[in-house]
Amino acid sequence: MLFQVEMTVKLPPDMPAEQAAEIKATEKAYSQDLQRQGKWRHLWRVAGSYSNVSIFDVEDNAELQELVSNLPLFPYMEIAVKPLCRHPSSVRDGDA
Amino acid sequence: MLFQVEMTVKLPPDMPAEQAAEIKATEKAYSQDLQRQGKWRHLWRVAGSYSNVSIFDVEDNAELQELVSNLPLFPYMEIAVKPLCRHPSSVRDGDA
Amino acid sequence: MLFQVEMTVKLPPDMPAEQAAEIKATEKAYSQDLQRQGKWRHLWRVAGSYSNVSIFDVEDNAELQELVSNLPLFPYMEIAVKPLCRHPSSVRDGDA
Amino acid sequence: MLFQVEMTVKLPPDMPAEQAAEIKATEKAYSQDLQRQGKWRHLWRVAGSYSNVSIFDVEDNAELQELVSNLPLFPYMEIAVKPLCRHPSSVRDGDA
Amino acid sequence: MLFQVEMTVKLPPDMPAEQAAEIKATEKAYSQDLQRQGKWRHLWRVAGSYSNVSIFDVEDNAELQELVSNLPLFPYMEIAVKPLCRHPSSVRDGDA
Amino acid sequence: MLFQVEMTVKLPPDMPAEQAAEIKATEKAYSQDLQRQGKWRHLWRVAGSYSNVSIFDVEDNAELQELVSNLPLFPYMEIAVKPLCRHPSSVRDGDA
Amino acid sequence: MLFQVEMTVKLPPDMPAEQAAEIKATEKAYSQDLQRQGKWRHLWRVAGSYSNVSIFDVEDNAELQELVSNLPLFPYMEIAVKPLCRHPSSVRDGDA
Amino acid sequence: MLFQVEMTVKLPPDMPAEQAAEIKATEKAYSQDLQRQGKWRHLWRVAGSYSNVSIFDVEDNAELQELVSNLPLFPYMEIAVKPLCRHPSSVRDGDA
Amino acid sequence: MLFQVEMTVKLPPDMPAEQAAEIKATEKAYSQDLQRQGKWRHLWRVAGSYSNVSIFDVEDNAELQELVSNLPLFPYMEIAVKPLCRHPSSVRDGDA
Amino acid sequence: MLFQVEMTVKLPPDMPAEQAAEIKATEKAYSQDLQRQGKWRHLWRVAGSYSNVSIFDVEDNAELQELVSNLPLFPYMEIAVKPLCRHPSSVRDGDA
Repeated sequence: MLFQVEMTVKLPPDMPAEQAAEIKATEKAYSQDLQRQGKWRHLWRVAGSYSNVSIFDVEDNAELQELVSNLPLFPYMEIAVKPLCRHPSSVRDGDA
Repeated sequence: MLFQVEMTVKLPPDMPAEQAAEIKATEKAYSQDLQRQGKWRHLWRVAGSYSNVSIFDVEDNAELQELVSNLPLFPYMEIAVKPLCRHPSSVRDGDA
Repeated sequence: MLFQVEMTVKLPPDMPAEQAAEIKATEKAYSQDLQRQGKWRHLWRVAGSYSNVSIFDVEDNAELQELVSNLPLFPYMEIAVKPLCRHPSSVRDGDA
Repeated sequence: MLFQVEMTVKLPPDMPAEQAAEIKATEKAYSQDLQRQGKWRHLWRVAGSYSNVSIFDVEDNAELQELVSNLPLFPYMEIAVKPLCRHPSSVRDGDA
Repeated sequence: MLFQVEMTVKLPPDMPAEQAAEIKATEKAYSQDLQRQGKWRHLWRVAGSYSNVSIFDVEDNAELQELVSNLPLFPYMEIAVKPLCRHPSSVRDGDA
Repeated sequence: MLFQVEMTVKLPPDMPAEQAAEIKATEKAYSQDLQRQGKWRHLWRVAGSYSNVSIFDVEDNAELQELVSNLPLFPYMEIAVKPLCRHPSSVRDGDA
Repeated sequence: MLFQVEMTVKLPPDMPAEQAAEIKATEKAYSQDLQRQGKWRHLWRVAGSYSNVSIFDVEDNAELQELVSNLPLFPYMEIAVKPLCRHPSSVRDGDA
Repeated sequence: MLFQVEMTVKLPPDMPAEQAAEIKATEKAYSQDLQRQGKWRHLWRVAGSYSNVSIFDVEDNAELQELVSNLPLFPYMEIAVKPLCRHPSSVRDGDA
Repeated sequence: MLFQVEMTVKLPPDMPAEQAAEIKATEKAYSQDLQRQGKWRHLWRVAGSYSNVSIFDVEDNAELQELVSNLPLFPYMEIAVKPLCRHPSSVRDGDA
Repeated sequence: MLFQVEMTVKLPPDMPAEQAAEIKATEKAYSQDLQRQGKWRHLWRVAGSYSNVSIFDVEDNAELQELVSNLPLFPYMEIAVKPLCRHPSSVRDGDA
């Protein structure tokens, strides 16, 4: 089951640089692990911003909550979620 | 080059049913043709709405404008565009 | 799987009274059928408005889309959807 | 008498972890006590967020204010309230 | 139990003048009847607008819905409701 | 001359508890003094919030500014003002 | 007593040209009469728009409502009102 | 003197096609004339929309109002204006 | 050339009182100097707020930027600018 | 390929003056280097603000992201991006 998730990172301006670097590294590893599992199906940067557009493929709402709320950057992001489903005009098999 | 395009259809309530059906049929054919060409890479319905989330893969901004402004439903949609690019944490080859 | 759906009805002011009455009657029957099936778990009026707050219990996003987009009042409503899941502090068994 | 209450938690990023943990524990106990009394009738997590959707069942507006303003997380939440009442199409006895 | 209700009238520009006059006359009679019953406790015009600020005194949310949704101008108004209760600093007996 | 004033208190989360308590006590005394003078005609809590709805009765705009800007909580509040006048449908003598 | 009033004209696109011309002519005469009386103290066009910024000088809120609600374009305008008073840094005698 | 002007065209859906075509042709001629005079310095389409971003070079605010309010599409556009001036970091002579 | 400028002061709550007093004193002197020069033509307080409505009379956009960006409170204000010009219905000579 | 980029600088009020001066100097050098390369085609100040309107000329979305995200002020700015393309009414060769 697919969800579009848009995330905008807003780090506090007084966060020490090392702390920020560490959170970002953990976030990257966490994200890549979920991508390799197929749970985080797409991940794009929105050009000119510190935002991304993502497509998650999860079992249900509860799994979406588990994956998103455990993001290392979760406390520092604005996040918008939209449930997706197959579009009647889609010809692409993988976008079920 | 990728763009996220979100479209919400707002047909005038007094549009005759046949006219609406015809526009939607033309839209579907147009959309499926672009999908088969690989220009309209993803197309999802936002569940509980008359909106979609789409990913376009175009040569440049001019081609995006050409494809979107020729949508049969273009005069009846609210459309939001975001330029996308590869995310530094992405592991997916196809999402260049 | 639960979703909160908030609907606000905006009928065109020039819709004939009989047509409005017919759509509302069909909507009521449709809604009560879904309630009896357990798909439309809760339905409340927001006091002082022509809006409702609803909780849907569906198999997945696709079923949500099917149920909501077939509402007789669907073309005349503003609809906002939020995916829900169990809250870690909930003590209520039924709110899984 | 029912109210929909939507709460979004926004903890200051510099709140010490122990202090946050303590407030959350107190909040959980407070919430579960109200749930067991039947005052806090439903509590759901909004998937992908640090928000909840709740249904309160109170005597009157004053009791709503008392229960909500005493939430341990009250100073750190954005809260939206909607008064609810029985929907004319509802078939569910408990949703009076 | 008190509620603040703010109403903004938006009549369709093509409504015939006689129809508008009739609705307004019915609205006035309905409003004055509720004021005399004590249900519509205060009614002020917002200066420079076609809006009012009102205080309703009702038994519960259901009565608020009944009174407001039966306003003759209800289909032509934007309405915002806020539940009120006694303020701890109030010295005014009547504002319970 | 009447004004509706809506105030929402937003204390900085790191304000020391004693300082907050002192400001609130001064605010309460100031408010009750104005209420007894008849300048602050109504004061209600918005249920489920740290906001109030107030009706001020002042000589003119300048007096409104003087009273509001001297509120001890003034630097910590979001304040919205609406000028009020008698509604043509009002039957209540005191709401001139 | 001064008020800033900002007005944006939104004529229905299907209003016959003669009707629009007539309303505008009546509006102009009404406005110039109030300007000559000193009630409508300033009137500026916002460049690049069909909006104006105005300063009214009235006895009280009730007179503001009377003058504004009798504008021939009143049913076709979005209007925002702000009560003004003397600024403590003002050196201009006339801006009392 | 430079102004950024952003225009979004919103034609009424029931405008006859010939009327729309005529207005657009007049608009195009008017725009190209101003461009050739140097008054309308830049004109870009926003990709994926029926909007443009323009830079006007005018004598003063009054000329901006004259040029913009005489656009044939003026009654059918949402228009936002920003006054521009030389940026202290600009190295481009023409962008005075 | 005239501009409407609306300024809302938002001082950081932890700014020391002496620093705030000093900035405000400098701001007052700066403002009164510009008023006496005729550059800052009107200055009004918005009643019930820490905002003002101002009319500037400047040579061009560049001078507006110079005057506004040098306000001592500039880093602590939200500022909105609207270019003004003579209204075709204005009868007031000074409001050119 | 052109993009409109609007940037609003929001420096934290407690950033030391030397640090702010250093970031601004680095920003200026970075901006002027990109201007000289032709990547940052236009740069204007929005009069009365700490904002700019810019036109970037880049290879693709990825280059836009690279240039914008490396701005020294990037962590302290609100940034809005719009993809541009040639307008069918444009007569200006350079605005391809």
